[in-house]
Amino acid sequence: MPMAYSVLLTDLYQLTMLQTYHAARMQEMAVFELFVRRLPDERGFLLAAGLEQALDYLESLHFTAAELDWLTDCGRFNPAFVAWLEAFRFAGDVDALPEGTVFFANEPILRVIAPLPQAQLVESRLINLLHYQTLIASKAARCVLAAPGKVLVDFGMRRAHGAEAALLAARANYLSGFAGTATVLAGMQFGIPVFGTMAHSLIQAYDREEEAFEQFAAAQPGNVTLLIDTYDTEAAARKLIQLAPRLQERGVMIRGVRLDSGDLAEHARQVRRILDEGGLRQVTILGSGDLDERRIAELLAVGAPFDGFGIGTRLDASTDAPTLDMVYKLQEYAGKPRRKRSEGKATWPGRKQIYRRMTDDRAFMSDGLGLEDAPQPGEPLLQPVMREGQRLVLPEPLSAIRERVQQQLAALPSTLRANRNEPPYPVEIAPELQEMAARLDRETH
Amino acid sequence: MPMAYSVLLTDLYQLTMLQTYHAARMQEMAVFELFVRRLPDERGFLLAAGLEQALDYLESLHFTAAELDWLTDCGRFNPAFVAWLEAFRFAGDVDALPEGTVFFANEPILRVIAPLPQAQLVESRLINLLHYQTLIASKAARCVLAAPGKVLVDFGMRRAHGAEAALLAARANYLSGFAGTATVLAGMQFGIPVFGTMAHSLIQAYDREEEAFEQFAAAQPGNVTLLIDTYDTEAAARKLIQLAPRLQERGVMIRGVRLDSGDLAEHARQVRRILDEGGLRQVTILGSGDLDERRIAELLAVGAPFDGFGIGTRLDASTDAPTLDMVYKLQEYAGKPRRKRSEGKATWPGRKQIYRRMTDDRAFMSDGLGLEDAPQPGEPLLQPVMREGQRLVLPEPLSAIRERVQQQLAALPSTLRANRNEPPYPVEIAPELQEMAARLDRETH
Repeated sequence: MPMAYSVLLTDLYQLTMLQTYHAARMQEMAVFELFVRRLPDERGFLLAAGLEQALDYLESLHFTAAELDWLTDCGRFNPAFVAWLEAFRFAGDVDALPEGTVFFANEPILRVIAPLPQAQLVESRLINLLHYQTLIASKAARCVLAAPGKVLVDFGMRRAHGAEAALLAARANYLSGFAGTATVLAGMQFGIPVFGTMAHSLIQAYDREEEAFEQFAAAQPGNVTLLIDTYDTEAAARKLIQLAPRLQERGVMIRGVRLDSGDLAEHARQVRRILDEGGLRQVTILGSGDLDERRIAELLAVGAPFDGFGIGTRLDASTDAPTLDMVYKLQEYAGKPRRKRSEGKATWPGRKQIYRRMTDDRAFMSDGLGLEDAPQPGEPLLQPVMREGQRLVLPEPLSAIRERVQQQLAALPSTLRANRNEPPYPVEIAPELQEMAARLDRETH
Repeated sequence: MPMAYSVLLTDLYQLTMLQTYHAARMQEMAVFELFVRRLPDERGFLLAAGLEQALDYLESLHFTAAELDWLTDCGRFNPAFVAWLEAFRFAGDVDALPEGTVFFANEPILRVIAPLPQAQLVESRLINLLHYQTLIASKAARCVLAAPGKVLVDFGMRRAHGAEAALLAARANYLSGFAGTATVLAGMQFGIPVFGTMAHSLIQAYDREEEAFEQFAAAQPGNVTLLIDTYDTEAAARKLIQLAPRLQERGVMIRGVRLDSGDLAEHARQVRRILDEGGLRQVTILGSGDLDERRIAELLAVGAPFDGFGIGTRLDASTDAPTLDMVYKLQEYAGKPRRKRSEGKATWPGRKQIYRRMTDDRAFMSDGLGLEDAPQPGEPLLQPVMREGQRLVLPEPLSAIRERVQQQLAALPSTLRANRNEPPYPVEIAPELQEMAARLDRETH
């Protein structure tokens, strides 16, 4: 399993801090919360994703003999500390938003309560896992909102940032409502539907384009989607009119064509006309090539007759907002609330809960961010998912998460549903949180 | 080894195309070249990186029994094709730029010559591997150019896009001249020096900041870098004046302080003055917090007394230019040059070579992009690295690649060395390439 990375996939300071906690016998319970400090200007909401992989990570956390040897040899760690790491496991409690839940700035999407060293060590990888899938699920949701009723496919593997990003992007896109992915391994690993067409290189490898179409189609069982922009898009569409009956005799259907370059809207209109006049009304048109939610909205706004889109680079690298300001902060230690006060980076202390208020017809109204032990009106969103290092529930089927996303997207305020990011959704900070923060600021020095 | 991903980490269309080539018995030699079509506006040059992992991938490529079963079960592939995949290996030739070589738009950084199915299947993962490390090495080089003589450390793991990105970013940053990384596993896996300080959470877990400093320092063998911006930066610096002598008696040196928030330049000046007046002239100041080459240049331009920087999110996600337009295109099949002509995406056909012209004092002058069999003045940059699926050379030590990078950066035109991206570096397309392209355009249909 590619997700099973070493416990040493962490920042060195986690280990030097653990060495301190070990030496100072600081093993009391710590409460950390993971949240996004501020939404990027390009986003009006985010979708929580990646919890499944985060829980896998916590459950399997341990040091191997080779890793302990390396720590000893690197000269930074004393023998008693390294020996103590041998039995190190994560045995804490985790509460989290179910995957596919909409959330906003300052709202915790995951809370860890564990002895301080356990809660600290996992920071780097927890952020790494939850940050990326949340980033991509949120971007994908914007694509889904921009293209109602269209078939969306993840084409992003090649320019995703490495292998794990490619796989997890396929998962995150699928959760948000994509029909599937071109990444084969994501199909095998997560059971996500896989889609594919053909590349320009196949067309180029043949001397004649129609020969490439025919041999490709003949070699695939069932249906095919053909790429028709290698030389002259409209000329290629006309070739299909001749080819379709011959293929049909051999039991092969042309299901779709893909357009990947030039003025996509204009080509789509021309190709639609050619196909319709040639009796190929059932053949769908798929667009691709540096697409994102903005370009798709533009194409659909001018009535370009696309049935679906392959979305790659701009999605799997979330190019307009490639990172989130996601952090994991200590909120309480040894029973006392804690607060970071660094300029511009202050946090809300204490164990918090998000209370979501809906209208009578199940639309989002406002969120309250308050303390867990001071319940407010609204649905509490953080749910228990792990106790003493053991999962409380089985992994959630992707279909259930997909359904949650669709319900949430339908319930968003209309501005957010239209991919407009202003005005910000109202998240009200409870008075008791503000009072606690002010009190800690007076006390801490 | 985290890099050993399944052969199914590819796009579905590679496999459907292979099924076509299998059925049509198209097994003749294909020539593919991997290049960047156009530099992002934010980049004046790129640094090639990732070849080592690409060659690992090609050498180990095969289908496991479980993968073949999955392909059979998915219903898209016929039994004869799946049986043929069982013995599938990569047995082609590869030429490439040595890692750390500067290159520009349209210049191939890797060429594959292999039977068509072998050369085709590897496209997605070759781009995935070479794209990301090239992206990050190029961004890191800009940081190195912006901060001459400063210690630069990769802090980006948590917001890199997944595990593999975090590891490969540490490698790419180190190649470009970073002193090291905070990512522990990159230290174990690649032998890269690891660096670390402490997090705000450690300070917060103690009731008093000075207690946190003292216990952290006392628990680490040797030197420590302390984070001093959790509450009041200048007050914390003054606490160190009291603490340093006590620590020195216990054999612990304060090597540095880290500033992570607020007006970094102003804090650095104040802290430098406090430390110097308190007899801690040898203590270095490390800056961090949403830094990139632009912000570092600004800090150094106003004389902020930083000795080094930790650079994270904006580096490992290359946030100002998070992807490159890197492609892998068929240039020749069965002895005939091939050319893609799609609008705005046309390619130069044939087997090419880059000829780099230097001035007498070893500065970059211009590149010539021509055919391999029509040598031009200048040094040919593409080197043979694999023949018939076997590496020709041992993996290059990272130290050798680091040295190549420093030589290349020193030889760049002064505008590029100053991180200015205009005017573009001259890459001259040879007349015979232009003639070949025009001829193919007339012939192909």
